[in-house]
Amino acid sequence: MMLDLAFIGFGNVARRFVGMMDEKARLLKSRYGFACRTVAICTRRHGAVINPGGLDAARAVEIVESGGSLDMLSGERTSVLAPCGLRAVDGLKKAAPSALEQGRLVVIETTVLDVRNGEPATGHVRAALESGAHVVTANKAPVAFAYGELRGLATRQNRMFLFEGAVMDGIPVFNLWRETLPAITVTGFRGVVNSTTNHVLDRMEAGASFFEALAEMQGAGIAEADPSLDVDGWDAAAKAAALINVLMNGNVTPLSIARTGIAGIDTARVRAVRARGRRLRLVARGERRESVIVGSVAPIELPGDDLLAGLEGTRNGLIIDTDLLGSVAVLQLDSGLTQTAYALLTDLLHLHGALCGGRPRALAAED
Amino acid sequence: MMLDLAFIGFGNVARRFVGMMDEKARLLKSRYGFACRTVAICTRRHGAVINPGGLDAARAVEIVESGGSLDMLSGERTSVLAPCGLRAVDGLKKAAPSALEQGRLVVIETTVLDVRNGEPATGHVRAALESGAHVVTANKAPVAFAYGELRGLATRQNRMFLFEGAVMDGIPVFNLWRETLPAITVTGFRGVVNSTTNHVLDRMEAGASFFEALAEMQGAGIAEADPSLDVDGWDAAAKAAALINVLMNGNVTPLSIARTGIAGIDTARVRAVRARGRRLRLVARGERRESVIVGSVAPIELPGDDLLAGLEGTRNGLIIDTDLLGSVAVLQLDSGLTQTAYALLTDLLHLHGALCGGRPRALAAED
Repeated sequence: MMLDLAFIGFGNVARRFVGMMDEKARLLKSRYGFACRTVAICTRRHGAVINPGGLDAARAVEIVESGGSLDMLSGERTSVLAPCGLRAVDGLKKAAPSALEQGRLVVIETTVLDVRNGEPATGHVRAALESGAHVVTANKAPVAFAYGELRGLATRQNRMFLFEGAVMDGIPVFNLWRETLPAITVTGFRGVVNSTTNHVLDRMEAGASFFEALAEMQGAGIAEADPSLDVDGWDAAAKAAALINVLMNGNVTPLSIARTGIAGIDTARVRAVRARGRRLRLVARGERRESVIVGSVAPIELPGDDLLAGLEGTRNGLIIDTDLLGSVAVLQLDSGLTQTAYALLTDLLHLHGALCGGRPRALAAED
Repeated sequence: MMLDLAFIGFGNVARRFVGMMDEKARLLKSRYGFACRTVAICTRRHGAVINPGGLDAARAVEIVESGGSLDMLSGERTSVLAPCGLRAVDGLKKAAPSALEQGRLVVIETTVLDVRNGEPATGHVRAALESGAHVVTANKAPVAFAYGELRGLATRQNRMFLFEGAVMDGIPVFNLWRETLPAITVTGFRGVVNSTTNHVLDRMEAGASFFEALAEMQGAGIAEADPSLDVDGWDAAAKAAALINVLMNGNVTPLSIARTGIAGIDTARVRAVRARGRRLRLVARGERRESVIVGSVAPIELPGDDLLAGLEGTRNGLIIDTDLLGSVAVLQLDSGLTQTAYALLTDLLHLHGALCGGRPRALAAED
């Protein structure tokens, strides 16, 4: 089955994904029988185009990276869309009704979002599912703010809503739980899931002030432009909410996570903790207390030999507590654009496998 | 689809698995539509029985645990088998030909084996696949000694050969790779995968002699009865071979793994390494060098902040190096009988999902 991809957002992650699909095209075809084409691209600053017969995605990457506008993508049936995700979905409904009806259209949602209210990503996901598209997103907000609603909508529409990249880029978290831990009850989790704060705390241990350390992260392009999203714990809270909603069948939003960031922590305290052989880490937790699930994000003093204490720099890690397996940890030791783009690829291959009536071929045949 | 289970080996792991299936029966039925019954049990010391109409597995557990013989399991169609795995497979061919033809029969192989030659487990797996059964095993030897052959046989027979428990009990390793890391190339791995040697090295750091530490592990029931399997690195070598064969598409056996154990290491050396802030760990590795894959097991002096150095006691861990994700680590923080039994359960649910034309229901529906 040929999948049609519509990109809402075409930033670094989406463009790296296009490159990865190219690099792996032969393997994807031979091992999984996977084939896709790009039919729409919607950007905020480089225009938006649609062509139900297929667009040249590699050329679109070049155009955007050289600062051009996507209306340079000529082609008989290429039309210019409004550069707004919701209107782009309307455009898909008009221009690609058969792909939507046949369940072959996948919206790849990678817009920049405000993690404090979940928009515009949540609106994009909702509109796309309502229109009959499947959705793959690298954004954490839809699953953090509206997982129950969007899951229900996807089920009613007989479409899939996938979001592996929401917590640790391409490192399996949701797929780990969904595909490899059947019949398990997750009783809680704790994790270091925000790279900026982790890096800042490392630098403060070495003597830097909070603001010096933060400026370094911003200079390296690791911190968000608005540092509050990282340092006030919003990013970690959104990830905690996503994990609670999916792994623990919870019903929370980032606003219901008890949230303490690292702003205002002084270097002397960070160094004093370190001098005692312990380490300060911004820890995201979910735990079941009686019948309620409590989520929190806070700087915690961890023993030096705690698994999370040892995660330095941009390393992230998650410890999942379960009924049958005890605790399982999965750690991301490298991070970058490729890892995030890979999350989109795994979701797309899962979707393809499910649409083709089972697992991806290679998985069934074990070859 | 009702699966028929035939146990070859009915030791602690298999019996814990029977209990787990009972505890989770309602969830397995409602969430996955999963149902099974036990049709044969073959033990070395408690007899062997078969009844294609179904045996009382819970009663069989009681009988074996009270030292009785399985021929006490009465029932109209229950016959006594020869207590030998290969003959039991012959018995299945005669007594349950329709379940074999229909692909509903699953042999659960958990016999005690000699990891230096892979028998009798490898023979059991081969005979079961040849007879038309699927195979789920907790033994590492079949995949370590004969993965290519058994995978080919399974493919020709249109049956499945699953072995999640081979390396880190129920912690996903093979399923992690197969189900959550599609299109990835594994370029290497290193891991601490043998609990006994890890524990012994911990105790030696604390001042115990090698033999004192080993005796403690034997007293606690953690070490193998024949300590050579652990301390000479055979167990870790079999796991390294299994990982190379499956994750790296290799073609090795435990005999081709360069193997150095920890026997003969003295406490002074272990303590001297520790005093330098480093730790000695028995590390299993696989790495691609030019076109060959090299596997090794050896005690390695690791920096104190190495992820594997921090794994104490019975904690195990594996770091997988990949092309698209960089390095991913998965760690087993708790271990025991339940974890090993859970590996059988995950394999059985995967098998059931594949037979039912796709993923287990809950995985597709996300509910």
